[in-house]
Amino acid sequence: MNHPLKLNGAQTLAHTLVNCGIDTCFANPGTSEMHMVASFDTVTQLRPVLCLFEGVVTGAADGYGRIAGRPAATLLHLGPGLANGLANLHNARRAATPIVNIVGDHATYHQQYDAPLASDIVGFARPVSAWICESKSSKTVAADAARAVQAARRAPGGIATLILPADTAWNPADRAASALQDIPAARVDTTTIDQIAQLLTNGKKTAILMRGTALHTDGQEAAGRIQVKTGVRLLSDTFAPRSECGAGRVAIERIPYFAEQIVATLAGLEQIILVGSKPPVTFFAYPGKPSWGAPEGCEFSYLAQPHEDSVQALQDLAEAVGASRESVPRISLQLPEMPEGAFNAVSIAQVIARLTPENAIFADEGGTSSGPMNTRMARARPWTHLPLTGGSIGQGLPLAVGAALAAPDRKVISTHGDGGAAYTLQALWTMAREKLDVTVVIFANRSYAILNIELKRVGAIGAGPRALSMLDLHNPELSWTKIASGMGVEATRATTCAEFASQYESAMKQRGPRLIEAIIEPLSI
Amino acid sequence: MNHPLKLNGAQTLAHTLVNCGIDTCFANPGTSEMHMVASFDTVTQLRPVLCLFEGVVTGAADGYGRIAGRPAATLLHLGPGLANGLANLHNARRAATPIVNIVGDHATYHQQYDAPLASDIVGFARPVSAWICESKSSKTVAADAARAVQAARRAPGGIATLILPADTAWNPADRAASALQDIPAARVDTTTIDQIAQLLTNGKKTAILMRGTALHTDGQEAAGRIQVKTGVRLLSDTFAPRSECGAGRVAIERIPYFAEQIVATLAGLEQIILVGSKPPVTFFAYPGKPSWGAPEGCEFSYLAQPHEDSVQALQDLAEAVGASRESVPRISLQLPEMPEGAFNAVSIAQVIARLTPENAIFADEGGTSSGPMNTRMARARPWTHLPLTGGSIGQGLPLAVGAALAAPDRKVISTHGDGGAAYTLQALWTMAREKLDVTVVIFANRSYAILNIELKRVGAIGAGPRALSMLDLHNPELSWTKIASGMGVEATRATTCAEFASQYESAMKQRGPRLIEAIIEPLSI
Repeated sequence: MNHPLKLNGAQTLAHTLVNCGIDTCFANPGTSEMHMVASFDTVTQLRPVLCLFEGVVTGAADGYGRIAGRPAATLLHLGPGLANGLANLHNARRAATPIVNIVGDHATYHQQYDAPLASDIVGFARPVSAWICESKSSKTVAADAARAVQAARRAPGGIATLILPADTAWNPADRAASALQDIPAARVDTTTIDQIAQLLTNGKKTAILMRGTALHTDGQEAAGRIQVKTGVRLLSDTFAPRSECGAGRVAIERIPYFAEQIVATLAGLEQIILVGSKPPVTFFAYPGKPSWGAPEGCEFSYLAQPHEDSVQALQDLAEAVGASRESVPRISLQLPEMPEGAFNAVSIAQVIARLTPENAIFADEGGTSSGPMNTRMARARPWTHLPLTGGSIGQGLPLAVGAALAAPDRKVISTHGDGGAAYTLQALWTMAREKLDVTVVIFANRSYAILNIELKRVGAIGAGPRALSMLDLHNPELSWTKIASGMGVEATRATTCAEFASQYESAMKQRGPRLIEAIIEPLSI
Repeated sequence: MNHPLKLNGAQTLAHTLVNCGIDTCFANPGTSEMHMVASFDTVTQLRPVLCLFEGVVTGAADGYGRIAGRPAATLLHLGPGLANGLANLHNARRAATPIVNIVGDHATYHQQYDAPLASDIVGFARPVSAWICESKSSKTVAADAARAVQAARRAPGGIATLILPADTAWNPADRAASALQDIPAARVDTTTIDQIAQLLTNGKKTAILMRGTALHTDGQEAAGRIQVKTGVRLLSDTFAPRSECGAGRVAIERIPYFAEQIVATLAGLEQIILVGSKPPVTFFAYPGKPSWGAPEGCEFSYLAQPHEDSVQALQDLAEAVGASRESVPRISLQLPEMPEGAFNAVSIAQVIARLTPENAIFADEGGTSSGPMNTRMARARPWTHLPLTGGSIGQGLPLAVGAALAAPDRKVISTHGDGGAAYTLQALWTMAREKLDVTVVIFANRSYAILNIELKRVGAIGAGPRALSMLDLHNPELSWTKIASGMGVEATRATTCAEFASQYESAMKQRGPRLIEAIIEPLSI
């Protein structure tokens, strides 16, 4: 096994990832990945980031990919390691984030024995992966890795899962592979552009509904010009993976969460142009209420599908409607007053909007507390919004880890419900270990607050004390200051507006991880 | 939607579970499961136990099933909720534990919209499930549930996953279903019994290797009689789901973990009789070392496959070899002295062996620290061993939750490595909430200690400081006392034998959850 001058499969894989532009590997390895781990000392351009749970690994890779616009790698331990990461891979799939999973497996010749850790890794990977490959030989690992990166980067971005049997990592290999050429996003044809341009002048009440890269700066600019010229409304999907928000940006209405709010937002629209998005539907079904959000008769047309180049399509459409030189109005800076009195999600949002420096990234999983955040932050200093895209709670803290590594010069804020934060609280440890500049605000209302609302909305009959106890986190109360401190993160508790403002201001002025546990009552919605 | 006198689908399901002998439902529900949650107030014989993460839900169901010998239910929130529980379902599958998963899904008519939480639930379920069904109508939910329980109970026990669209829960239904008859374990035919009986008298060096119910009391007794009569060695699988151990039991050698230890244990054997087990192989492959544990030429014969009745087969075999009236020698009680001096996994094991009351249940995920536990506990007061069956770490704490609920009058001890405990630490909260009589001992060596050993054993070339940092949990150090306290569990830290003995003794004398963080150095193995 000693070929000190020759690379093994793991080393060719690590070199190949670097050749393909990957510089970060979120890892929770085990025995079958030890040669990949050893390669981190040989291939020093690939930075390993240890996480104590795989849901943190995959959520961090999602946060990294959304901010960097290119994939991070993950390193996961066989089927169960991948399984622990699946929920946040579900969210990442919904975000169309590029991620390259490296999943170790038993050596090829060991698989016949069905040892305890053996499982159907491909089966676990299939529901979340755009691309799956099991490497069969150390000689093919490098080429497989290059294809994995290409697959992950393919528009709109996807999850590529490469399964690496231990012997394909430790056996001698030839050389690393070069990056394969990117497969560019498909350009929308001129016929479609012209058809949509005609729709914009047919006099109907129209909105453009955007998701994906359309909501990055260039897409917003083009959409803003079209709006000035045609009067079309600009809408954003409720859970668009990444949006640029706040002062200096183009104003775009985000579709709200609850069914009747969606209906009210879309009321009167006669046609909706989809740009990387789908027709709006409710998040859940409710007995006797429609799932469909648009008014009856409202017509949908696709300017760009998710795999197509939305930004180019918007720019082409601006040209087609004669809007390419329009001057676009911007959101003006308007900070809320410092709150006094009641301490709740609304006053917290005011403090955050007032004190957060510009270009902060919000890894937002506030649940019921996110509504006030979004309205209070509307005219705050420019910020980037990363919401929960797939509805699987426990994403916010890992997302913040990844975002902070992708943008070390930007402040990252994770506004988080307490119920969801408990899922992947191990992310706090990685924040401490990597000294990440993340401020976590826990909305500690000691409940799955959204479920208390949903319980009524779905008309659940006969719910009594036992049912309500399933939604209540008071017994016992989680102490987020103790938990964070136990994970190495400095933490404080706020029970008034003044305490919160003082703690948040200090967090904004220092670098490194901080947690503020805001003790509030659930909002009544 | 108001049919107050008529049951809805969720209520018929809950009643059916009770009719089929299920009394406990470990739950982490969301909006789509609200009607199941509401049913907990109608169907009060079904006890809901809230867990803050689905890996706790499924691991607890495993612990419950291994001790109770019958399934608990789980309640999980769509595909991602199931996904978070898959790693411990993998362990439960390896343990052949009966479990009935109820996985909520979007209403049938909502599924066409591919809302954010939609995913391939069947795809997630397939690698771990023995039985899967998607209910299509509220009218069939009860019958589906009865079949799910029957499938889970079918020998040797398996995971049944019932997917419950929200409208099949909330729509009106007819009535609950009765329990279906159990499908009994297959009885081993007399030809096989006679053939194995002949093997036991052919003069070859022979062992009986057992797993599953063979290691419960009756199976051990029958095996002990066969041993007295024939001189056969009695072996246990390394990770048998549940074994009765300690004073008063039949002595059975457990096959060790590492390859060379397996080879040494099996050296000289010419034939091995398998009872609910498979031929022993190494847990992982190692370069240049065999995966197969038995000596060359050693022959394997099956007395009973996992789906067959191992206990009956052993009793029939005892009869066939004329051993049915043999008197079986028992392990005599012999408690270790109280340790002095070095504080490590060995001295901890001595204290635990000396002070643990009889009939304790050990939910054991000690990793490198488990070896000393098993040797020091060999002649301790009788105890039940629940190890990590599938190698997916993060099982011990949830397993303890389930075991404590299945056997509220027995002390449950969870001896746990710190790396693994970090995966599912939310189990501590449920221990506090349900006031479970669990003592957690964290072997806080601040490392993935097993991986430091495995790194060398797999011959990973070129591992340096970055690789080693991936196995090290010192930066920052987790404080288990703070984390446990933050979850509502009383916790203390021990740094000497005397401190540990005092804390452990007090934990044994009181009821309710306790955590002891034992600060030790990793063992050198």
